[in-house]
Amino acid sequence: MAKENAAIQNNSLGIIRTQYFTFDSLQLESKEKFGPVTLAYETYGQLNKDRSNAVLVLHALSGDAHAAGVSEQGAVVGWWDALIGPGKAFDTNKYFIICSNVLGGCQGSTGPSTLNPRTGKPYGINFPLVTIGDIVNAQKRLIASLGIKELLSVVGGSMGGMQVLSWLVKYPELVRSAIPIATAARHSPQQIAFNEVGRQAILADAHWNGGDYYHSLPPDKGLAVARMIGHITYMSDISMAEKFGREKEKDPRKLKFTADFQVGGYLRYRGDNFVKRFDANSYLYITKAMDDFDASSGKPLYEVLRGIKAKVLVIAFKSDWLYPAYQSQEIIKACKLAGLSAAYCEINSTYGHDAFLLEVKEETHLIAHFLKKVFYGYEVTGNYEI
Amino acid sequence: MAKENAAIQNNSLGIIRTQYFTFDSLQLESKEKFGPVTLAYETYGQLNKDRSNAVLVLHALSGDAHAAGVSEQGAVVGWWDALIGPGKAFDTNKYFIICSNVLGGCQGSTGPSTLNPRTGKPYGINFPLVTIGDIVNAQKRLIASLGIKELLSVVGGSMGGMQVLSWLVKYPELVRSAIPIATAARHSPQQIAFNEVGRQAILADAHWNGGDYYHSLPPDKGLAVARMIGHITYMSDISMAEKFGREKEKDPRKLKFTADFQVGGYLRYRGDNFVKRFDANSYLYITKAMDDFDASSGKPLYEVLRGIKAKVLVIAFKSDWLYPAYQSQEIIKACKLAGLSAAYCEINSTYGHDAFLLEVKEETHLIAHFLKKVFYGYEVTGNYEI
Repeated sequence: MAKENAAIQNNSLGIIRTQYFTFDSLQLESKEKFGPVTLAYETYGQLNKDRSNAVLVLHALSGDAHAAGVSEQGAVVGWWDALIGPGKAFDTNKYFIICSNVLGGCQGSTGPSTLNPRTGKPYGINFPLVTIGDIVNAQKRLIASLGIKELLSVVGGSMGGMQVLSWLVKYPELVRSAIPIATAARHSPQQIAFNEVGRQAILADAHWNGGDYYHSLPPDKGLAVARMIGHITYMSDISMAEKFGREKEKDPRKLKFTADFQVGGYLRYRGDNFVKRFDANSYLYITKAMDDFDASSGKPLYEVLRGIKAKVLVIAFKSDWLYPAYQSQEIIKACKLAGLSAAYCEINSTYGHDAFLLEVKEETHLIAHFLKKVFYGYEVTGNYEI
Repeated sequence: MAKENAAIQNNSLGIIRTQYFTFDSLQLESKEKFGPVTLAYETYGQLNKDRSNAVLVLHALSGDAHAAGVSEQGAVVGWWDALIGPGKAFDTNKYFIICSNVLGGCQGSTGPSTLNPRTGKPYGINFPLVTIGDIVNAQKRLIASLGIKELLSVVGGSMGGMQVLSWLVKYPELVRSAIPIATAARHSPQQIAFNEVGRQAILADAHWNGGDYYHSLPPDKGLAVARMIGHITYMSDISMAEKFGREKEKDPRKLKFTADFQVGGYLRYRGDNFVKRFDANSYLYITKAMDDFDASSGKPLYEVLRGIKAKVLVIAFKSDWLYPAYQSQEIIKACKLAGLSAAYCEINSTYGHDAFLLEVKEETHLIAHFLKKVFYGYEVTGNYEI
């Protein structure tokens, strides 16, 4: 309790309760009709009278609806708490922030681990393949249920950025601005390859059992390996060197091939922790949705952006080799070619892809100014480096 | 047979028979005495009268003794055949080339899959942890058995380059020159991390069974995942994009989560093929030897290179992100600081780490000139880009 109290006292948003929105069915992009659908979501701040201050925050692969504040259970601080709250980048004194767990996820929204009401058993791999577009369509239902007709901004990093682009292209009339961070309009073969190996690690675990493991041991080892691969790609060569060097664990267990370098111990720790909160089937479905995503469905991106009035702020990080800056540059070039009011910033970080969660000062500076401009209707333009 | 005949006709070295050298015991760097030891090896060309034309070629993680020519069994062309043969970089009309499978390997040399003569069973993880230094010490015994007192050159890429550095530091009086290619004096945390995840993938496979699987199903799925991770790191973002794009397999099997992008199918294919020829325990032992390697044992590299007469040619590749050029630059800087006669070349390749196997023209140009200079005693110096 002492730890929980400390977390709550130090957090200006205090305790946040996750809410749930359920609707009967969703027409998937595959034409399949699927339902019922529940989305777990949280909100921070107050919707203003003319409902013009709503910002939709979109999470990455392993994220959830709990973006800010302290969770009611377990006193967990939200994954983007550093950017969401009174006086922060997403200032809850000014804006109404919404974040929901993605369709297909495992943190309260409907996904493969959810009970299929027609069978009384978890869907497993009978859950339909969902797309980033389906994820966005489900969010649109949530937004409508909150009485919001237009979003001041849609924002997210990594897979969250893909959802931003999908919102922008599918529903340009509903978004006044978009902030895609450390993301890509489509995955490169290298990005697909890393996800593919993560999926293969899960499928290789005998406990995966064709996705039917909810009443037996889950494929924890395979999922942990997938997460370890992910973690390497989220950091940079430099940030790893700074964090670990070649130090060995002080108390290495004496078994051969037990990770004895600190970096190995760290990865194992992160892998082992991940399996406690994440479902292996959700990992398969969500990474597949990312790999299949193409913001412009094979066309040049600028073609599908033409005529869009939304203002755009594209952010990339120099040491991010998983979503390299050239992919963000493709997005800003397409915005410019399409005539959008758009700005680009490449932040000089050493944190790699993780930078979108860690470069709080620079992101706050950029985002707070951008949102203010959008809110008051100023022009947005220019490229700058921090 | 048609395929075999074609391979033999097209290969100027023709059929090569692997040979075996066995000795009673080896004092390991851990102080343990281990034996007997067998090394599988091949030779190409003829040792000259004064035994001054011998070049030791050192293989990478998944390599073997069959570096050139066509194998007696299976008509397999050697892994560096493009560089070894009459008129090639390692000109077998001039030089006598030796390549042996590493201690701890699984392609004819003693390793964890070898029968322990004291138990009649494979060593498994009772095989001692071996180091790059131990691997080199075993090679030294092989070289002595061939009546060679001094090597014209030691050369290798990746883990082969680590052995080159180990030869140079441990036995400078025995090597007239050294060619470390696409390698590092020690692994960075990122390099350790990729190996660690590969090892974890093997350990996660229930069939690994504590390393005791030689009379049951081997941990093929875990080893395949390890190999897939490796393959991503051997290629570059660019070379993957050029090779695959976002093409999907033309005949995707209809199962969910079967790799449907071409890049995924390729990785699976490479993973599945690898397990047919490689032992999972060897993968554990050899990657551990790489991670533990430090050419200068914690000291600055230039300190342990001082006074060495051998000439050095360091080669790196611009798109190699697994063994980035800065690691080769550290080696050449240490050589210069220590006053060695040394040259550095960074080849402008897009192939990533695989470039050391593929950039035949550039490597041939560099290596042929360098070896000629060493053979005739000219000075070696300068840095150049290709």
